[in-house]
Amino acid sequence: MKCVVISAGKIWDFDLMKQYIFPGDYVIAADGGVRNAGRLGVKPDCVLGDFDSLGYVPDSASAIYPSRKDDTDTVLAVKYGLAKGFTEFVILGGLGGRLDHTVANFSALDYIRLHGGRSMLVDENTVVRLLAPGDAIQPVLLGEENYFSVFPYGCEYAVISMTGVEYPTERQRFDSSFPLGVSNHVTDPETFRVTVHEGKALVIECRER
Amino acid sequence: MKCVVISAGKIWDFDLMKQYIFPGDYVIAADGGVRNAGRLGVKPDCVLGDFDSLGYVPDSASAIYPSRKDDTDTVLAVKYGLAKGFTEFVILGGLGGRLDHTVANFSALDYIRLHGGRSMLVDENTVVRLLAPGDAIQPVLLGEENYFSVFPYGCEYAVISMTGVEYPTERQRFDSSFPLGVSNHVTDPETFRVTVHEGKALVIECRER
Repeated sequence: MKCVVISAGKIWDFDLMKQYIFPGDYVIAADGGVRNAGRLGVKPDCVLGDFDSLGYVPDSASAIYPSRKDDTDTVLAVKYGLAKGFTEFVILGGLGGRLDHTVANFSALDYIRLHGGRSMLVDENTVVRLLAPGDAIQPVLLGEENYFSVFPYGCEYAVISMTGVEYPTERQRFDSSFPLGVSNHVTDPETFRVTVHEGKALVIECRER
Repeated sequence: MKCVVISAGKIWDFDLMKQYIFPGDYVIAADGGVRNAGRLGVKPDCVLGDFDSLGYVPDSASAIYPSRKDDTDTVLAVKYGLAKGFTEFVILGGLGGRLDHTVANFSALDYIRLHGGRSMLVDENTVVRLLAPGDAIQPVLLGEENYFSVFPYGCEYAVISMTGVEYPTERQRFDSSFPLGVSNHVTDPETFRVTVHEGKALVIECRER
């Protein structure tokens, strides 16, 4: 059982995005995410936020927060989910809107990790995860035509080994000042492995639009 | 005189984007950026890349690079501009496409800074810059309705002071694991100042779409 956070960002293909939500998942709609939840045909278990982006407080609101606050609505939802004991999060509607929101949501992945959870940000063509030493992941977007990129996050550089990809690396240093990790491809899901030895890495999978 | 790099990312409003190009600017079109240059009505001073995204090598190509390389086409353009002695860069067509490209281009800003230059990534609604200790900037998107956000970049945290904004800070620590710096507003351009004391910061200005 995982926690699905539905945020207010633009969702284009509701059928595709619905596939990330399984029966039994705990669904939190954050502010304008209520609208996305409706169009996804999902009844959230919890609705929260300052409701600035929705423009009104819906009847289903479980928790109402002030507008002037340090947390974004997505972070409020994440904190709520963590407090409920969830350790796995999928965030929908958190990419593809304002770029500052997208980058803010990268830090939500880091926040979740810091609190013992795992998470991903997804849109129709993108999956973003944060990887640190000890973490293991499998690719989500299968197919050699998709892109698998790694970038250091929250650090000057990350040291990363990768196998099962077009450009394998062995304890390669990836610096914040050079996009060495962009546009790799998973060529062999069987032998695929990405290991972060030092630092943390933002792992971004993209489908060509 | 500055160097304008035109990359292959989607440009929606060519008239608006044209305003970032001044007479006398040195214009480099990177790969598919040639198409954007054409639609901007700009004749590039240099056309370079592996021409994978364009799909053919244009007659105007100044430099052709292999597909299997460590540099992105945008970074090739940046290196070319730096080698020509430019210290100010504006990158168009570097946001709003694949998210991995956008994040890769953040590191191009860092690369330029590391080599003594200043730069910005722009699209119709967004301006992204990288700020380090000693740097001074003014807001580009004027108007209190626009968003002014800061995020640590290439570091675990950045220490930042801000004045002339809705939420001023005094040597505030901004962590990579919390989006404290998102959705601020420039309220007074006269007294506006953002100072990075430690670390580096990605400064993102956004217009609500």
